[in-house]
Amino acid sequence: MVFTDIATRTYNHNWRLDPIVRSLLDTDFYKLLMLQMIRQLHPDVSATFELINRTRGVRLADVIDEAELRAQLDHARTLRFGKKELIWLAGNSFYGRRQMFSPEFIGWLADFRLPEYELSKHDGQYELRFHGPWTHTMMWEIPALAIINELRSRAAMKGRGRFELDVLYARAKAKLWEKVERLSALPDLVISDFGTRRRHGFLWQRWCVEALKEGLGSRFIGSSNVLLAMDADLEAIGTNAHELPMVYAALSDGDDALASAPYRVLQDWSAHYGGNLLIALPDAFGTASFLRNAPDWVADWTGFRPDSAPPIEGGEQIIRWWQEKGRDPRTKLLIFSDGMDIDSIESTYHHFHGRVRMSFGWGTNLTNDFRGCAPFETSGLDPISLVCKVVEADGRPAVKLSDNPSKATGSPSEIERYLRIFGAAGRQDAAVLV
Amino acid sequence: MVFTDIATRTYNHNWRLDPIVRSLLDTDFYKLLMLQMIRQLHPDVSATFELINRTRGVRLADVIDEAELRAQLDHARTLRFGKKELIWLAGNSFYGRRQMFSPEFIGWLADFRLPEYELSKHDGQYELRFHGPWTHTMMWEIPALAIINELRSRAAMKGRGRFELDVLYARAKAKLWEKVERLSALPDLVISDFGTRRRHGFLWQRWCVEALKEGLGSRFIGSSNVLLAMDADLEAIGTNAHELPMVYAALSDGDDALASAPYRVLQDWSAHYGGNLLIALPDAFGTASFLRNAPDWVADWTGFRPDSAPPIEGGEQIIRWWQEKGRDPRTKLLIFSDGMDIDSIESTYHHFHGRVRMSFGWGTNLTNDFRGCAPFETSGLDPISLVCKVVEADGRPAVKLSDNPSKATGSPSEIERYLRIFGAAGRQDAAVLV
Repeated sequence: MVFTDIATRTYNHNWRLDPIVRSLLDTDFYKLLMLQMIRQLHPDVSATFELINRTRGVRLADVIDEAELRAQLDHARTLRFGKKELIWLAGNSFYGRRQMFSPEFIGWLADFRLPEYELSKHDGQYELRFHGPWTHTMMWEIPALAIINELRSRAAMKGRGRFELDVLYARAKAKLWEKVERLSALPDLVISDFGTRRRHGFLWQRWCVEALKEGLGSRFIGSSNVLLAMDADLEAIGTNAHELPMVYAALSDGDDALASAPYRVLQDWSAHYGGNLLIALPDAFGTASFLRNAPDWVADWTGFRPDSAPPIEGGEQIIRWWQEKGRDPRTKLLIFSDGMDIDSIESTYHHFHGRVRMSFGWGTNLTNDFRGCAPFETSGLDPISLVCKVVEADGRPAVKLSDNPSKATGSPSEIERYLRIFGAAGRQDAAVLV
Repeated sequence: MVFTDIATRTYNHNWRLDPIVRSLLDTDFYKLLMLQMIRQLHPDVSATFELINRTRGVRLADVIDEAELRAQLDHARTLRFGKKELIWLAGNSFYGRRQMFSPEFIGWLADFRLPEYELSKHDGQYELRFHGPWTHTMMWEIPALAIINELRSRAAMKGRGRFELDVLYARAKAKLWEKVERLSALPDLVISDFGTRRRHGFLWQRWCVEALKEGLGSRFIGSSNVLLAMDADLEAIGTNAHELPMVYAALSDGDDALASAPYRVLQDWSAHYGGNLLIALPDAFGTASFLRNAPDWVADWTGFRPDSAPPIEGGEQIIRWWQEKGRDPRTKLLIFSDGMDIDSIESTYHHFHGRVRMSFGWGTNLTNDFRGCAPFETSGLDPISLVCKVVEADGRPAVKLSDNPSKATGSPSEIERYLRIFGAAGRQDAAVLV
């Protein structure tokens, strides 16, 4: 005799909504770090963020129901930081430092809510824009991406039988565990979860994080997801992102100011965080130009996160630069986070082992690799390259050049102007898979 | 906020016993078919069944707690056929025939219970014997084996974390589904579940049956497990087993009677079931001898279940014999059921396709293949070759020669006498893995 809990079953069949984002902490840690600085230094800057689907072949507006998307976005707008969440942000140590967030900032967060959104459809794609104060629109990036990615997964699984889903998840678990076993053969590995935005779903990301924790022990250093870090007593991982140099650049008056924008970001960051969290993102306008024009003090930073060049070439380029600057790469850190998966992690690890400190931020291919797992025909579970980028700051267009032209964003004329300032050295096209 | 149903949790933590066998229908169908005939023709024969662990290296008495084993065996003795179970046995059609079980037999089953057992330990092994009327002791075979196999699985998983078990089952599911996908490429496949006795556990067998049903559709014709067949509206599959010729042989007076015992079984069977269920098991005392001495009418039977010769050689041997007897093998049926797995099913299928009708009874490698699945070190989940065989009938020793001397049972002197009568032609040693 099987006993069914009637209340549970009735509840399960009467959900008004199964929320995808249930907490404002369900975001990437670097968002909070950047937000604190933006709030202090640039409280009046407005910034527009926009969804960009680089996988044009996937017509998201045909796959995801607009009413469901609005319901999820509206639900996210009802969220506030919870009391225990704010206490944790205030009381926890991050990167070994206490009081990373000021009491004043924590107080400000208590009233925070996500701002309005603008949603329309065009040619099978959603146009989703967030316009308003940078301090608010920037917080949409991660929940918006997580919502769209999970709605897409749900659509691909809709109407499938319990057994098919059982096989799907069994295979996905087995597939991830194979990767974990291969990673566990790398004794000095340092790796963290960067998979929030592109995840298959929240519960799946949680399973992936649990798998890395179980299988890799102390080599798994934490998650970029603040909620998961809090819930699982892991380190919250992350520093800063492209939006900082992109907005600084957009707001620059004249070519000289534009050329020096990436370094002003670093100065502000270092000042704001008292010389902690010194990881630079070199590729916003091309790594070659960034390194060539960098002031000497940039070489004193802890490390770099190359995010669009091929990992081995990108790493070698930075190591050469450190050596030219007279620094010992073995004291420096490289964080690889661009579309990494088991093969590239292994090859990068072996290539650089002993020559530089390394850390891996594992994103999409950790939390959304269901390729070959479905026991039914679907391409709806293959990850897509979806981003949410700043496109305007105080009414001026924002641009990202990247080391990979396929990852560039901005209007063609602005991109041309930026290329004139920063040059195109070292940029090379590569397929953007995730 | 996670809501935990307090009653469910308390219940889960207060089990007196998690029963392995919960129904007397949780047995192989052929047991019921044989039982009906034994009850009618041999109601007064006593028979002793005994557990035999052919995988001597696994010291079961060191692995399985005796008190737990007794608790499970005792629990099985409390079981009675349920009212709806008897109604189903009476009302269901088996192999297209209504009223396979007589009302009088059904009435007798209503009072049936498993008889006593004798349990002791010797040299790291359990000695488990069932002594009493053949009509009762024979019903212990399947539940006793299922209990010991599942207790062994449970011992191997004891104390393991929830996550490790999650990975274990995810991999086992993925592994089985790979096999299902390979099998689904065989268009004329006919296959059934024969895995009750050696199963990892009841719930796992149920999952495996569900997987075959989902993945193979009508090519999956049913399960030997009567309970699962009833619950899932599948065909119950099976006919007869070695215990019939073994007991007939043991009761034979003199060499001539012994030599003809296998054919008297077939005569009684055919008469009892009105010319239905005509599948012969040829290997009890060697297939070569069985075929050489078989009366012509044996060639009129529907088919054979070769159970210890290598499948291709064994099948060819029987096909040659049919041809010698002037029968067309394409109208005949071979049922392969000895330690089959995906590779041997594929090769046997391709070898005989178009030349003979074929069916596969998939046992241990269906319901207990966890090799390579555990994310922890253990050999405790590898299947072992455990059987429960009749060893005595009315005080006379019972013998099985088999086509594979490793599968022979009985005292050396009796085996020698049987070999003198039946010959050793065609017997060849092969490793008995499962």
